[in-house]
Amino acid sequence: MGNARGDRPPYAEDTFNCPTDKGQTGWMADQYAQSREDNRPTEIPAIRWEEPPEGPVLVLLDQTRLPAEEVELVCTDAPALVAAIRSLAVRGAPLLGIAGAYGVALAAARGFDVDEAAVALAQARPTAVNLPVGVRRAREAYEVELARSGDREQAAGAALVAARVLHREDAEASARMAVHGLALLDELLPGGGHRVLTHCNTGSLVSGGEGTAFAVALAAHRTGRLRRLWVDETRPLLQGARLTAYEAARSGMAYTLLTDNAAGSLFAAGEVDAVLIGADRIAADGSVANKVGSYPLAVLARYHHVPFIVVAPVTTVDPDTPDGASIEVEQRAGHEVTEIAAPQVPVAGAEAGGGIPVAPLGTQAYNPAFDVTPPELVTAIVTEAGVVSPVTAAALAELCDRSRQVTI
Amino acid sequence: MGNARGDRPPYAEDTFNCPTDKGQTGWMADQYAQSREDNRPTEIPAIRWEEPPEGPVLVLLDQTRLPAEEVELVCTDAPALVAAIRSLAVRGAPLLGIAGAYGVALAAARGFDVDEAAVALAQARPTAVNLPVGVRRAREAYEVELARSGDREQAAGAALVAARVLHREDAEASARMAVHGLALLDELLPGGGHRVLTHCNTGSLVSGGEGTAFAVALAAHRTGRLRRLWVDETRPLLQGARLTAYEAARSGMAYTLLTDNAAGSLFAAGEVDAVLIGADRIAADGSVANKVGSYPLAVLARYHHVPFIVVAPVTTVDPDTPDGASIEVEQRAGHEVTEIAAPQVPVAGAEAGGGIPVAPLGTQAYNPAFDVTPPELVTAIVTEAGVVSPVTAAALAELCDRSRQVTI
Repeated sequence: MGNARGDRPPYAEDTFNCPTDKGQTGWMADQYAQSREDNRPTEIPAIRWEEPPEGPVLVLLDQTRLPAEEVELVCTDAPALVAAIRSLAVRGAPLLGIAGAYGVALAAARGFDVDEAAVALAQARPTAVNLPVGVRRAREAYEVELARSGDREQAAGAALVAARVLHREDAEASARMAVHGLALLDELLPGGGHRVLTHCNTGSLVSGGEGTAFAVALAAHRTGRLRRLWVDETRPLLQGARLTAYEAARSGMAYTLLTDNAAGSLFAAGEVDAVLIGADRIAADGSVANKVGSYPLAVLARYHHVPFIVVAPVTTVDPDTPDGASIEVEQRAGHEVTEIAAPQVPVAGAEAGGGIPVAPLGTQAYNPAFDVTPPELVTAIVTEAGVVSPVTAAALAELCDRSRQVTI
Repeated sequence: MGNARGDRPPYAEDTFNCPTDKGQTGWMADQYAQSREDNRPTEIPAIRWEEPPEGPVLVLLDQTRLPAEEVELVCTDAPALVAAIRSLAVRGAPLLGIAGAYGVALAAARGFDVDEAAVALAQARPTAVNLPVGVRRAREAYEVELARSGDREQAAGAALVAARVLHREDAEASARMAVHGLALLDELLPGGGHRVLTHCNTGSLVSGGEGTAFAVALAAHRTGRLRRLWVDETRPLLQGARLTAYEAARSGMAYTLLTDNAAGSLFAAGEVDAVLIGADRIAADGSVANKVGSYPLAVLARYHHVPFIVVAPVTTVDPDTPDGASIEVEQRAGHEVTEIAAPQVPVAGAEAGGGIPVAPLGTQAYNPAFDVTPPELVTAIVTEAGVVSPVTAAALAELCDRSRQVTI
């Protein structure tokens, strides 16, 4: 059975007892032991800056077309990038920060109004705090250099440097989160053979490096400690099926896809040793906004005494958001639910239609992009600057201060 | 806020405390207050027996084509019905029992081997106990009459009568479940204005009458007590989006569709007053097997002190299945998860393909059709013979005995 349950670890509070496992483990292990050995690395980075003769461009891997096609989107101005962010062609909290910074550099390099571009980019989507943070970094670099030299071209260069530094920092942060996260897994689940459940997509497609939660699973895989990655499909946009499965297959992990509502059966069968997810925003009190469906996993994890681990860079922590209730949760169009958008069909276009209708015409849909998990359900928050567990406002504040001192 | 939380009802055990509501109620009520006023009744019954000149047939509404098309499947022998059951063209525990009984009558009326047909039908799907029960009733009627008269034609007539009686009994059971269920809602949630969450499809498409859980919601709607029906889309086959939304729209209910993983946000916002679901099999100890995704709702409901109510006919209770671990849960093909089957595409065909791939080729999927909710998470089981609450083996056994005395 799950290590997490084998020797009741300290975080497993007995406020709520679940029935003992259904004993289906062996059966399942047999049925799902196969793994896909496919180590092709993906050729195309999620984001890159290029400077062809006709002027600088930001090139994005269009994540709405994966895994069917690897298509690139070329942005020549901020409005094109804003549209790409809204359509989720580029997505994931850390990558949104990088994209926002490059977007400011792009506007500056092409002589557009930098303030206007910065405002539009920062507001493209509301929940991920990394986006405005990334935008601000490039914009400040631009303004400081402009004030110093009075030269718009040099200021544009400063903005690009800031974006590139953020990009590199994020890659380094991924590597450090993977190290901290793997150490935490080893501590919580001695003996290895981890069976990890993840939700949405948190790998190299959302990051300048190997990602957040997925980077930890990848580190466990490379060191022979990952027995299986359970991949929630993540409705409505299927980032788990389309993107995480794509990254897991390429890394040669043993992974199994499931509908989000089948996770309960896995917990009940003792097939989940830990939940690893990312975060789009972490409030000062430790409340975690992440892809809708994360909160139900947190409740199931608590019920089954399984650790629920959030992996995110320190930039995801927003000291200006006091608590979960203060987090603005993006509400997306109902047609993402009432219509099925497959890779062949534009995903989450701004306009309705384009998908295959699966509900009667006129059906209303409730479609929040995120949900909020309160700190008491989070076993640990893993950042590049270290691990916070138990999750408290004081511990988070202390971590943020430490990491700022490091950055500055 | 939810009545269920307003005045801590007795069933809300404080073994596990949830954060207070996020106070988004007013905001949501505004955003989702619209209802679809469309009272067209569906013209086609889910199942009917016909006797055209070329011989008797069983006519099914092909539920895999809804809501896009109302297409009928005409079965002239048991193997055709077995295929329809496996493909979910006909589905839902009570309706499967009726279909099984008519299937035996069909085989008898057309002079096929009745024993062979009965065995094949009883085994078409493993989880719903109603299917073998319905098959047995028609088969016993056939054998008793054959032993008495020695006349196969008369025996076939007796099997058909048994199927028709079961069909009528199920319609009457629906009506009684609705009465008992509505009374329970009024008791648990004084004040009305119920906001009910349901999963999968439990209406007239699964029953000889108006269904199980849906029939209770319908009764609340007709008496002005239903404020909103929250409809889980129910991956992978989207019975909620395709079928429950179709039935809710036709009944003129205020309903809102959501992805299964968005239910957690609704509970957290205090937007769910009760969960109403059906059941495919209820073990002697009160463990409830129902569509995958029911168990996570039960855990969320307990965490948020919301009643979790199971509505099912007494035939769903299987005294021969001692507990949840003894329930055989049907494992379905992975392509139901790795491919999207929309109404335009055959749903859940026996062979892979036919759907739109949404995951990389070679992706393994975990696809249980059902999950099992332990009795301690079930607030009440509503049957046509009365309500069991709290759910205990003794109370269930007593209910079954009483209802058998009534039937005999």
